[in-house]
Amino acid sequence: MADSKKYLLGEDRIPKAWYNVAADLPVAPPAVLHPGTGKPIGPGDLAPLFPMAVIMQEISTERWIEIPEAVRDIYRLWRPSPLVRAGRLEKALDTPARIFFKYEGVSPSGSHKPNTAVAQAFYNKQEGVTRLTTETGAGQWGSALAFAGNLFGLQVEVYMVKVSYEQKPYRRALMETYGAKCIASPSNLTASGRAILAQNPESTGSLGIAISEAVELAAQRDDTKYSLGSVLNHVLLHQTVIGLEAQEQMTMAGFAPDIVIGCAGGGSNFGGIAFPYVGEKIKDQSKVRIIAVEPASCPTLTRGRYAYDFGDTGHLTPLVKMYTLGSTFIPSPIHAGGLRYHGMSPLVSHTKELGLIEACAYAQLECFAAAVQFARCEGIVPAPESSHAIKAAVDEALRCKREGKAETILFSLSGHGHFDMGAYTAYFAGQLRDEPYDQAAQDDALASLPKIAAE
Amino acid sequence: MADSKKYLLGEDRIPKAWYNVAADLPVAPPAVLHPGTGKPIGPGDLAPLFPMAVIMQEISTERWIEIPEAVRDIYRLWRPSPLVRAGRLEKALDTPARIFFKYEGVSPSGSHKPNTAVAQAFYNKQEGVTRLTTETGAGQWGSALAFAGNLFGLQVEVYMVKVSYEQKPYRRALMETYGAKCIASPSNLTASGRAILAQNPESTGSLGIAISEAVELAAQRDDTKYSLGSVLNHVLLHQTVIGLEAQEQMTMAGFAPDIVIGCAGGGSNFGGIAFPYVGEKIKDQSKVRIIAVEPASCPTLTRGRYAYDFGDTGHLTPLVKMYTLGSTFIPSPIHAGGLRYHGMSPLVSHTKELGLIEACAYAQLECFAAAVQFARCEGIVPAPESSHAIKAAVDEALRCKREGKAETILFSLSGHGHFDMGAYTAYFAGQLRDEPYDQAAQDDALASLPKIAAE
Repeated sequence: MADSKKYLLGEDRIPKAWYNVAADLPVAPPAVLHPGTGKPIGPGDLAPLFPMAVIMQEISTERWIEIPEAVRDIYRLWRPSPLVRAGRLEKALDTPARIFFKYEGVSPSGSHKPNTAVAQAFYNKQEGVTRLTTETGAGQWGSALAFAGNLFGLQVEVYMVKVSYEQKPYRRALMETYGAKCIASPSNLTASGRAILAQNPESTGSLGIAISEAVELAAQRDDTKYSLGSVLNHVLLHQTVIGLEAQEQMTMAGFAPDIVIGCAGGGSNFGGIAFPYVGEKIKDQSKVRIIAVEPASCPTLTRGRYAYDFGDTGHLTPLVKMYTLGSTFIPSPIHAGGLRYHGMSPLVSHTKELGLIEACAYAQLECFAAAVQFARCEGIVPAPESSHAIKAAVDEALRCKREGKAETILFSLSGHGHFDMGAYTAYFAGQLRDEPYDQAAQDDALASLPKIAAE
Repeated sequence: MADSKKYLLGEDRIPKAWYNVAADLPVAPPAVLHPGTGKPIGPGDLAPLFPMAVIMQEISTERWIEIPEAVRDIYRLWRPSPLVRAGRLEKALDTPARIFFKYEGVSPSGSHKPNTAVAQAFYNKQEGVTRLTTETGAGQWGSALAFAGNLFGLQVEVYMVKVSYEQKPYRRALMETYGAKCIASPSNLTASGRAILAQNPESTGSLGIAISEAVELAAQRDDTKYSLGSVLNHVLLHQTVIGLEAQEQMTMAGFAPDIVIGCAGGGSNFGGIAFPYVGEKIKDQSKVRIIAVEPASCPTLTRGRYAYDFGDTGHLTPLVKMYTLGSTFIPSPIHAGGLRYHGMSPLVSHTKELGLIEACAYAQLECFAAAVQFARCEGIVPAPESSHAIKAAVDEALRCKREGKAETILFSLSGHGHFDMGAYTAYFAGQLRDEPYDQAAQDDALASLPKIAAE
């Protein structure tokens, strides 16, 4: 196939319900525990942070959860997103494999993140909340919530991991254009931030720290709730519009994927493309391979431990069972800031434990090389996070070539790299390195896992 | 209308031919003259700079010119582009007017420019050219040609106006990602550049200077031709896919525009949305208003003179009759770099002379204010150039509100502002000014118009 081809759906094909993989899992996921008592938490324990509609989604085992019309109305600004057959990339790789990608970069903020940001802003507005706090890594989540909050008249305060705040000033400008406030984390506005700065005034921050800051503020203020852009069940639920649309579009294209690929930081993009296929795999006993791709410098699924841990560095969150590198682990400052999280979505971790998905890790430079090849074939310059999925897709396509197999590969291109061009500049200038993985730091971080982990 | 709505076309609805307005004009446009002899030039005079297929399009009076399949194949990467009814903006303005925009920011490089870049790269490749030189202002054209040249295996060298080169490093990175070479203009690589630097080593450059540099190099090398991103007839011809698709989409939406708006620098975006409507207006004697919007600091159509002038500062181009501020006029360094050109497309100028279109000008700050309002309603952060069209659309919608008229407004949103977020940062920080228009500089520049202008 020499040319690339788009598969588009009309607005009426925006899914009417999100798919909840928890309904179909052969084994229920482990309970979320209260860090003080070690006992399972109830909905009320989460009420200071989240609106009740969201909490009920977090624990729901319903298979389909209706998408409110007000949310679908906003989805229509960019959804359904295109599915593209990457014919030019196939040709450049000279592979018999078919490569498809689902492109989420068409959203207003340029990534998949608004799929859940809009839903969360809607439910918060419905319950009378006036202000949302959140954290952001590369800035994709922060700008998505800024966009969504603005549409519902909510004030949005974003704690942005300092290394990204400095690397990506354009992301900050985007948040401000949407009317949000953006603060470099660790900041001195919270006890959590001040504690980190006291230890290390030069801290470049981490998602774990930024989460602590945002959670702390939300817990303190009645009019304020916290909004998380990944990791939790309801976030991945909202993202399943990606995979649901992709399933319909793959049917239009006349192929069923043999391999489904997504990059994974907290797990929301991966869960979004993967879970509808995980559901199919459970139902049909199909052999589809579902691959989460992570950075070698933050290899949660591939080198972490499956254990109860905190979601944040300041230990303000409940304990969740997940693959973790330890909540105090701070990954090296790679440009794929959205993948720098010590943990992994409990649902993604659980499907990995059940053998429903697999995982692999790639280093930064090989991902940028794949991203540049992709841009030169398909025109789209990918976000550094998404480049991990591209690298995995390219590797699978090259394996198909060696093995003479015409497999069908589908990956999620979670966002464009327009706000990350500084990273490309550094890559071309030879200034990027593959940071060695810090095994000692991981060992240290794992040694301080909460006691419950020993059970 | 509270919500926004997209009108999408399938790939089979990408136009099969470009529309050539020259076929329908009641009076033929003035001839292009040789600067030495003052006589009309022939195709051979342009052969050192352009491939013959492009030259024949430049002088064609055929109404429809077929789009090669290879070009349509690449258009399919992003075309047809969406038409959107800006329901949220309508609501925010509380206007009875209907506001539609045709969104060209979905292209790989984020603006309308690839519509012609792909065509030009195709024709050059067909005629054995291996290298293209060009100029770029804000970088939209340079990155479009970098994208298109790469797809056809052509080397691309882009002379980028220095003020934009410094303001917009991400644009440069984008060109490099597509494999192009990007040079700040004026440079010391050309006689034209060296002459400017000798006069003023601190020159921030202009499109006119950058054109001289690119033209000079193309004229010197047999394997190299020059590619222009605006102004000329063939460029506007290629851009008519914008208006042709919009016409079909407006029919889908069930409304015919009373007003068609485009921002105008060299005129390619404006011509692209406007010319199919100019053709309709001539044929149907309809009353549709067609408005070109320019920056108050470079008000070619609104304050320039309709006269023969050079297209570049170094006086290497033929003489074209157009609205001009004088080829030595250097506009103040506003952020809408793509609108900083001393002249205006001869075809656009001619339709203005014929009373088929009108023009207006806005200052920088009021355009940014309109852009921010638009982004908060519709999610898309516009390029500073496009913000001029938004401001005009908003003003017309507010007039409709005062007059109680439900008019239909269509504007071209020529590109997104993801590479221009530095401008938004400066805007929010209160660092932008409305540069006073330099009447004395214009008078000086007009005084040095070539002699033929006096005829």
